[in-house]
Amino acid sequence: MKHNFNAGPSILPKEVFEEASRAIVDFNNTGLSILEIGHRTPLFEAVMDEAVSLVKELMKLDADKEVLFLHGGASTQFFQLPMNFLSKDKKAAYLDCGVWGTKAIKEAKLFGQVQVVASSSDRNYSYIPKEYQIPNDAAYFHYTTNNTIEGTQMQSIPKSDVPLIADMSSDILSREMDFNQFDFIYAGAQKNIGAAGVNLVVVDKNFLLKANSSLPSMMDYRVHIANGSMLNTPPVFAIYVCLLTLRWLKKIGGIPAIEKLNNQKASLLYSTLEKSSLFHLPVKKEDRSFMNAVFTMTDSSLEKDFLSLCRREGMIGIEGHRNVGGFRVSMYNAMPMSSVEALTELINEFINTYSS
Amino acid sequence: MKHNFNAGPSILPKEVFEEASRAIVDFNNTGLSILEIGHRTPLFEAVMDEAVSLVKELMKLDADKEVLFLHGGASTQFFQLPMNFLSKDKKAAYLDCGVWGTKAIKEAKLFGQVQVVASSSDRNYSYIPKEYQIPNDAAYFHYTTNNTIEGTQMQSIPKSDVPLIADMSSDILSREMDFNQFDFIYAGAQKNIGAAGVNLVVVDKNFLLKANSSLPSMMDYRVHIANGSMLNTPPVFAIYVCLLTLRWLKKIGGIPAIEKLNNQKASLLYSTLEKSSLFHLPVKKEDRSFMNAVFTMTDSSLEKDFLSLCRREGMIGIEGHRNVGGFRVSMYNAMPMSSVEALTELINEFINTYSS
Repeated sequence: MKHNFNAGPSILPKEVFEEASRAIVDFNNTGLSILEIGHRTPLFEAVMDEAVSLVKELMKLDADKEVLFLHGGASTQFFQLPMNFLSKDKKAAYLDCGVWGTKAIKEAKLFGQVQVVASSSDRNYSYIPKEYQIPNDAAYFHYTTNNTIEGTQMQSIPKSDVPLIADMSSDILSREMDFNQFDFIYAGAQKNIGAAGVNLVVVDKNFLLKANSSLPSMMDYRVHIANGSMLNTPPVFAIYVCLLTLRWLKKIGGIPAIEKLNNQKASLLYSTLEKSSLFHLPVKKEDRSFMNAVFTMTDSSLEKDFLSLCRREGMIGIEGHRNVGGFRVSMYNAMPMSSVEALTELINEFINTYSS
Repeated sequence: MKHNFNAGPSILPKEVFEEASRAIVDFNNTGLSILEIGHRTPLFEAVMDEAVSLVKELMKLDADKEVLFLHGGASTQFFQLPMNFLSKDKKAAYLDCGVWGTKAIKEAKLFGQVQVVASSSDRNYSYIPKEYQIPNDAAYFHYTTNNTIEGTQMQSIPKSDVPLIADMSSDILSREMDFNQFDFIYAGAQKNIGAAGVNLVVVDKNFLLKANSSLPSMMDYRVHIANGSMLNTPPVFAIYVCLLTLRWLKKIGGIPAIEKLNNQKASLLYSTLEKSSLFHLPVKKEDRSFMNAVFTMTDSSLEKDFLSLCRREGMIGIEGHRNVGGFRVSMYNAMPMSSVEALTELINEFINTYSS
């Protein structure tokens, strides 16, 4: 029995694996593999249409929002966004809350001015800054809703008078939010949406009126919208896995149901870790992520013992990111409660052994 | 029984489908799906390393060539290339042989000057221009080796004193070529390499010395090389399918063996079509593609009868592209001789019925 706590690519529902596996040899009883069907066929158009409409339904998007499935990951959006909405005489506001936000800022600087409104780099990104002003003349305000590496998560949507943009790669579809407050949302699929190799973009049509012209076709969101995410051959299989995962999410009750489960999983893990001074939780309590829990050992020499114990019991992907060290436990939507329970049992066992 | 003549995404070897399907539920007996393994793990690093080394081996690349697997399709390369190697004061030379070359030219014009050295647009791209001069002051010369839509193929490598760049999306790995003559080769994977959603790039290290600086990280080939095609989360599954397809190609004898088979398939189809004046082959004989055969009916009112006959017998994807009309039969590496034989039997049956 394996328990996969990978930070991404990460666990997906078992039934998604099974159906995706079947579709590789026979897609929808066509006698053809999903890998060999043309993308401009009713067969694949139905996949794309259903995936787009499930995103709209699950996120309760209003009529001004367009949903795109684009090549690449969030890292592509780091530069595509400012390429569309910045220029040397324009300024964008960014909140700097971790490694991914820092990368987004670096790319934006190539296209225009960047004002970092606040940063938590002073304490190794272990908290979310709360007090800051977003300049009214910014082309947009950009932040990361959940910081995968540092284990922090923004608990509310910032008030912004300028267009609001969020990288939701590691917590999209995990909790209820008024997604219509955003002018632009993007997320690499490989955590809560589906398989690696595709990017979900939700963009407000009115915001697109402000986009630059003379863009390369593949970089122009308007061109992708006009072509229904099929300007060129899309990442067919990755989108199909998104469809299967979205169907699963709807079936189990959508975002409200998964949010409840995600809260239970995170609460169980954090409360178990808090029981003993063996474990140290570097993130400020109010800013803790419900997707990625980061912790270290007070006595770092015990870390390898804990890691060995976890490995022996089939726990995968719990080593911390090289920037933070210690451990990181990712509990995305598809992670069952039973895996978190198995991990907390090990933690309790470890506490009993080493606290004596 | 289905015979899949799709132009792309297209048929792959049956054993590739079977192994890919297994890996979705259990990858290499790990108990994990290929979709849930981390990309920065020995498990996936081994996939990437073997895929890169098989490309080098099959294409007999010299030590100056770097192999990358990048997000996106050839359409991404249409702008990424000039973004790296052009500027307003530089000129690139392009050969205009079809729809895809035209798209590449359009994107290049956003970054610098473009000189189209020759075009076959005067006769609907039904031939390959032979007489043209490549300017010595061009930053590079770009052409398309095989024109998927129009059914033409370049039979030899153009002599060029400037860096040579080719879009090989629809005939890479299909025939022997001195690939080391190229400074840059790119190809969307979804025809002869693997699954849609990844791009193969082969680039000469010395050519990269001429690349522009201050590029977005995701657009900078040097950054991708430094990160072993893992600057961000790669399209894991698409690359795995490439690995399986490359292994299959090596096993059956590599490029020399597949070239022989490809010649036999194309010769059988073209010679069958040539037997009757019912069929019209618009492409100049010497420029015919061995991957995509394009034909129409002399009496176009018969086209729907032929299409019905083909559909009844499980022939898929033979409708011509909307730009050309008629029929297009794609015979990529994985297309078995038996499918081409089945199609030529139908053609013969049709000739017998309608020629009387």
